[in-house]
Amino acid sequence: MRKRAVQSKGPAARSGTLTEKLCDAIKGQIASGIYLPGSALPSSRALAEELGVSRSTVTVAFEQLAAEGYVDISQGSRPRVPQSLHRHIPLGNKTRVKIPLKLSAFATRLQTLVPPDRLPRLKADFRAGDISGIDFPEPSWHKAVLHALRIQPKALKYDDPLGSLELRKSLRAYMWRSRGVRCDEHQIVVVNGSQQGIDLCARIFLNASDPVVVEDPGYILARHAFEAIGARVVPIPVDRDGMQTSLLKGVTANLAYVTPSHQYPLGGILPVARRHELLQWATRVGAFIVEDDYDGEFRYDIKPTETLHSLDTDDRVIYLGTVSKTLSPELRLGYLVVPPELISAFALAKRMTDRHSALLQQRAMHAFIENAGFERHIRRARRINARRRTLLLSEVQEVLGDLAEIAGEAAGLHIVLWLNQVSRELEESFVKNAGEHGLGLYGITPFYSDQTRRRTEPRAGFVVGYAALDDVEIRRGIQILRQLQPKPPQ
Amino acid sequence: MRKRAVQSKGPAARSGTLTEKLCDAIKGQIASGIYLPGSALPSSRALAEELGVSRSTVTVAFEQLAAEGYVDISQGSRPRVPQSLHRHIPLGNKTRVKIPLKLSAFATRLQTLVPPDRLPRLKADFRAGDISGIDFPEPSWHKAVLHALRIQPKALKYDDPLGSLELRKSLRAYMWRSRGVRCDEHQIVVVNGSQQGIDLCARIFLNASDPVVVEDPGYILARHAFEAIGARVVPIPVDRDGMQTSLLKGVTANLAYVTPSHQYPLGGILPVARRHELLQWATRVGAFIVEDDYDGEFRYDIKPTETLHSLDTDDRVIYLGTVSKTLSPELRLGYLVVPPELISAFALAKRMTDRHSALLQQRAMHAFIENAGFERHIRRARRINARRRTLLLSEVQEVLGDLAEIAGEAAGLHIVLWLNQVSRELEESFVKNAGEHGLGLYGITPFYSDQTRRRTEPRAGFVVGYAALDDVEIRRGIQILRQLQPKPPQ
Repeated sequence: MRKRAVQSKGPAARSGTLTEKLCDAIKGQIASGIYLPGSALPSSRALAEELGVSRSTVTVAFEQLAAEGYVDISQGSRPRVPQSLHRHIPLGNKTRVKIPLKLSAFATRLQTLVPPDRLPRLKADFRAGDISGIDFPEPSWHKAVLHALRIQPKALKYDDPLGSLELRKSLRAYMWRSRGVRCDEHQIVVVNGSQQGIDLCARIFLNASDPVVVEDPGYILARHAFEAIGARVVPIPVDRDGMQTSLLKGVTANLAYVTPSHQYPLGGILPVARRHELLQWATRVGAFIVEDDYDGEFRYDIKPTETLHSLDTDDRVIYLGTVSKTLSPELRLGYLVVPPELISAFALAKRMTDRHSALLQQRAMHAFIENAGFERHIRRARRINARRRTLLLSEVQEVLGDLAEIAGEAAGLHIVLWLNQVSRELEESFVKNAGEHGLGLYGITPFYSDQTRRRTEPRAGFVVGYAALDDVEIRRGIQILRQLQPKPPQ
Repeated sequence: MRKRAVQSKGPAARSGTLTEKLCDAIKGQIASGIYLPGSALPSSRALAEELGVSRSTVTVAFEQLAAEGYVDISQGSRPRVPQSLHRHIPLGNKTRVKIPLKLSAFATRLQTLVPPDRLPRLKADFRAGDISGIDFPEPSWHKAVLHALRIQPKALKYDDPLGSLELRKSLRAYMWRSRGVRCDEHQIVVVNGSQQGIDLCARIFLNASDPVVVEDPGYILARHAFEAIGARVVPIPVDRDGMQTSLLKGVTANLAYVTPSHQYPLGGILPVARRHELLQWATRVGAFIVEDDYDGEFRYDIKPTETLHSLDTDDRVIYLGTVSKTLSPELRLGYLVVPPELISAFALAKRMTDRHSALLQQRAMHAFIENAGFERHIRRARRINARRRTLLLSEVQEVLGDLAEIAGEAAGLHIVLWLNQVSRELEESFVKNAGEHGLGLYGITPFYSDQTRRRTEPRAGFVVGYAALDDVEIRRGIQILRQLQPKPPQ
């Protein structure tokens, strides 16, 4: 990063009209002391003659300089540099005093929550969250965008902070068809991807040091969003069935963040008894629950599971959906379903954050849902990802065999891979080594909020996303994993 | 708003496959107590016969119910409702206990910062911020979007939080050409319109009760963004030349928000002596200055003025630009230029807020700048708005004459109109009356942060935006204003 490429920023050799150049030149002369504060500039006639330009060019330049406060003009006398300019002329070569940087508590906390670097030029990258560009439904999305472009309102103005009403109506019907989520369109808030949904919830419900319940291990960026606000994260351990809701006893919080359809990252599906326990806890302590249904559309053996939202009779659940997995993370398009009593809080917060989400994409998404392109694409993407998953699972079994154990493979676009021969202490160096061999691999340890909990599992574990990979990359990735296995003792 | 349209959300009459319907029916039977916890369901064979469906349909339904935790399946025996479900069955008719709503301090403060309602079906609307859809450069923007759609990366992933590097390079060149802003592309942060830029600055620099300097009167949504954070707003009075920087003496703050190119709303252009005074104050107290150049592209008599950013030799200025006035507020596209030492703070905050801005629009904007469509459009929009402005000014003079005084008309897309015969106490009722006569009119009083300051001007004042209006509407609006004038005493 070129840190100091911006040193000299004063009036400079910008190409421009004659007037602009003349203005810049006179500003330079004032700055360098050729014309001192209180002194008069040459008359426009004199300056025009001296420079060989028209008198009107000089007059226009004087007017510009006057508008910016560099000179005072009064009828019949020469332009004068105002006295007030005196003590304000910057010294070109003054010593720069280093001013200590004062940031907010929020920004200071963020500096401890730094994302890992992306590795360049990998032979295979198991990063969860990436999806394939090859699968993208180019022609039908193209058509939807063209449709959106044809909408030409008479006046361009700020829209409803909750999002375009048309899109919210489409989303309402889509959520009901695909996820059994029943709501009114006025409860829907269109956001810029799940991250904005989570951040809005953090801002609306949490003050610094307020408790917030998260899954442990859980989604890193949700935990970070809460920590950035300064909230006190209360991690509830997760087993193969998701959050152990019995451990909520005695816990109070304003907010809980869960992934019941496909626990992130371990992959469990929260059983209905635990769902009721979670909902009853929320009602008891007055907490709201964010249900992040980030990949609820992807189930392979069985139908998508019911949402927590549809079991909620007390309006405690905020449902969060996204098109990042079903269409593209580049679009930054997500949606919240909020209980009626929260609609105005979300509208006010969204407006203060960025007014509303961009309308071009909202209109395109509306058209895409309405012409059935979206659901056709999801069905196709589910088939393609089922194939990727089958290949990944069979490659793991064939190539790694007893060296590995798989978890969380019933749903979603990632699995968890435990390596039987690698201890958890070696996880980080294994990841680093994999990177040097061209494999993007992601350890499970950072997903734990509390390192002591990690102790229940002695093996190294990895979150393996496969939705962006082709067959060759999947095979290559598992082959590299095989080569990296520790040699058995002779 | 239909507040309670979402009462019954349990398994219901969703259209779906036979398996889904069977699942829903069994869930209903469990919920209503037909199958009690611990009891066994019929065998798949028996149920298939009873219902006249295939046995495999029933088996698949059982597997689904097991995955969701409604039944336990074990080899060779009938599915059983788990004991743990016992105490969790929701009572359909239980009395709803009203849980008090606990919101954060941020959300609570937002409830006092409510925007005014938009009036429907106006004959003319002088709202500043709206721009005409007729002016929109439809064909060339269309082309730019098509260009963006052709970019099909192999993998779809989260991008740089600072924005697309291509767009930042285009913006760097554009800002230099059009506004004389000189920076490195790595200093640019693409945001969702100015509001997100302001909100990010508020979050990065301000804790609750930290002082922040604003212009008085000033831009309402900036002041509100700071107040929502809980910051202590320090209003500095504005005169016809913008902020009275001499009044900064003795003031300390982490942040100042200013509109030096065209003070919002009064329209002054900050003279260079005040600019230096402001910059020196910032260096002295260690404050950063947000320079909101929201309509710097629109100047009519003289060239656009230099930015505060280009006078800044100490890296105190954060420059904020937007396409909301030059292209469309619907796009939600803005850009910050931040000092090098702040790049990482902004990258971390933007990522936590919403990862990054949507790529489709960033790519389209890049193409639009590169094929020169953007600057061609700005030149055209400047001509069209100059015409609107001329018409507005002449209508005011002709129709209102001595009844009105105009201010701030040298730049931008709005003017301030003072009505000589209407006292400031009647401003609000005048606005209301105008609305009833089909005129959207906006009083200047809400722009003042401190009502006592408003006392220096005894007349009613209005912020009159004209960029969305056609000639007929401008004429009609001024005619309605004329009719609303108080009758002279007989």
